[in-house]
Amino acid sequence: MIVNGKHYRTIWLSETDDQVVQIIDQRFLPHRFVMEDIGTLAEMATAIKDMHVRGAGLIGAAAGYGMYLASLEAANNQNFDEFIALSGKKLKAARPTAVNLAWAVDKQLESMKSGRNPQEKASIAKETAAQIADFDADCCRRIGQHGLGLIEQISRIKGGQTVNILTHCNAGWLAFVDYGTATAPIYAAHAKGIDVHVWVDETRPRNQGASLTAWELGKQGVPHTIITDNAGGHLMQHGMVDLVMVGSDRTTHTGDVANKIGTYLKALAARDNHIPFYVALPSSTFDWEIKDGIKEIPIEERDGDEVRTIEGLCEGEIKKVLLTPENSPAANYAFDVTPARLVTALITERGICKPNKNEILNLFPEKNT
Amino acid sequence: MIVNGKHYRTIWLSETDDQVVQIIDQRFLPHRFVMEDIGTLAEMATAIKDMHVRGAGLIGAAAGYGMYLASLEAANNQNFDEFIALSGKKLKAARPTAVNLAWAVDKQLESMKSGRNPQEKASIAKETAAQIADFDADCCRRIGQHGLGLIEQISRIKGGQTVNILTHCNAGWLAFVDYGTATAPIYAAHAKGIDVHVWVDETRPRNQGASLTAWELGKQGVPHTIITDNAGGHLMQHGMVDLVMVGSDRTTHTGDVANKIGTYLKALAARDNHIPFYVALPSSTFDWEIKDGIKEIPIEERDGDEVRTIEGLCEGEIKKVLLTPENSPAANYAFDVTPARLVTALITERGICKPNKNEILNLFPEKNT
Repeated sequence: MIVNGKHYRTIWLSETDDQVVQIIDQRFLPHRFVMEDIGTLAEMATAIKDMHVRGAGLIGAAAGYGMYLASLEAANNQNFDEFIALSGKKLKAARPTAVNLAWAVDKQLESMKSGRNPQEKASIAKETAAQIADFDADCCRRIGQHGLGLIEQISRIKGGQTVNILTHCNAGWLAFVDYGTATAPIYAAHAKGIDVHVWVDETRPRNQGASLTAWELGKQGVPHTIITDNAGGHLMQHGMVDLVMVGSDRTTHTGDVANKIGTYLKALAARDNHIPFYVALPSSTFDWEIKDGIKEIPIEERDGDEVRTIEGLCEGEIKKVLLTPENSPAANYAFDVTPARLVTALITERGICKPNKNEILNLFPEKNT
Repeated sequence: MIVNGKHYRTIWLSETDDQVVQIIDQRFLPHRFVMEDIGTLAEMATAIKDMHVRGAGLIGAAAGYGMYLASLEAANNQNFDEFIALSGKKLKAARPTAVNLAWAVDKQLESMKSGRNPQEKASIAKETAAQIADFDADCCRRIGQHGLGLIEQISRIKGGQTVNILTHCNAGWLAFVDYGTATAPIYAAHAKGIDVHVWVDETRPRNQGASLTAWELGKQGVPHTIITDNAGGHLMQHGMVDLVMVGSDRTTHTGDVANKIGTYLKALAARDNHIPFYVALPSSTFDWEIKDGIKEIPIEERDGDEVRTIEGLCEGEIKKVLLTPENSPAANYAFDVTPARLVTALITERGICKPNKNEILNLFPEKNT
């Protein structure tokens, strides 16, 4: 997407040195736009672990490029295969629950097998890293095209009046390589001249909505308004939301959606007010095994200090402030599960389907085993 | 309630000088416990306007004491009645939408009429101010006794296991003179030795849950855990909430409840998970005119900077930090309306009733005109 007049992805190979990977260091957003050069596997592992990069798709792409950097280091090493295997383990340990991370590492390990020497293996790894990133961006682009139709339809029904879309957290291009998932149809609609406006849930505790989604939309010139996570229900009661569009961290093949904590509350409000609730997701987030998302998806519990404190800009510096009494404990569940019955439809890279096993398997017949 | 081993109300006449009113200056909570001496009407108007004191009941009591201070000043003035009338106007203008504020001012103006001279009028005003405060505290105490039965019942059903109560915003003693409304049954249960635990919604944007309710509960030794406003639905899905208890800023006589923004979302989640949703309120919040809360209750829209920024403790000082991109706009709706169909029951100072016109008028037959 465009930042300050230039096209960026969230991760890319340096134009001047193909042994250096560059990323947007997201820790400084929305206050500063900082890029970082990554030259070693260890630096990439740190970037993933300390969340310079985050988001399902982007973590996968970062792991792909991390393995490429590892292959360059391994070429100078006595035992290439041993070094590479160890590198894969280090990357996987950086964010142990991220599905795409392990997937990208394994894909690299597999593809490098066909190289006959370290130089060939490194060359293959470079190409595979680019493929992983391109595939992620292409999935998102397709999601955008499929979702665009839904927004166009509402715009037509409203006679061209503003289409108001509510989103939660950041399922934007910053979480992927480009376009994003929930944002992709919005960017596609905006590019086509459809009048859209986005209500951006701030998304406590980590505030990815207020800091990342709002920043993204602002840079693309998409009209938007930041709201507290409490406000969406009121807006829906008063006809100020035409559709809800969110991402997914894990989707059962029965249509239950695990996404950022608070998504379920917006789905309830959407149903209560007869507003469509869409989930945009690349098929890599499908879980083809489990059936009951609420009972079976384990929910990550993070440090309560993410609730007790918050970071923001104060006198030109990024500072952390304490919001609660010194001794009050806090709980921090990172995700919740929205049951399929509250989801209007899923928007995938292959098209749109109802959130049930039959329709999902119709789109992905190769999973019907 | 108890703070650091001593009993406090939120407002009281100084023990050493009955021409001075003392308040807890709530702007510094939860980080510092600061008391403030108020000696003039102007100081009280500032305390109300700048939210040293806030909350429906407390604003009323503060207005009562403000009029008493005005009567002392008026006694030294050439035209007592003119000074008093102007003082009433100044107080009413401090928070124009607060129902109890105007009510307390008018009560003082009316009661002072029977005084034969400025000294008598000031004496009457002193007594009336105390009555207003006592009445508020007594209403809350009664709400506590009525609500206690509901918590006892769940405790019995659970065989004495912890009763988990979720609350939103601060309907605690800090919002009234003592006890609070939503908190009163909790304090009563805790005092009776019932095992209770409170999930405290932080309540963005002003965070009254994280800063005030958590502080209150901590000082009384009530076990509690702060959560983001996003988390309640997940907790309810997993059996971790036994009942929801909130306050009300305005209640239609048909049972619709206007309360802090986000209350509606918790009511939806409670219904979806078959969890009782109680609203505790003094009858002063009833609106006996309007019928449809969603259509007819005007919702205050506050400055978006309350969403874009937040205050907290940083290196020993209370600082404000920016959470959003510099140029992203924010909307800030202060309340939402929970329709009666989502409310299990109302807990008033006269008892518990279903949220419908018949049951409400049964409790308050004098309003059945």
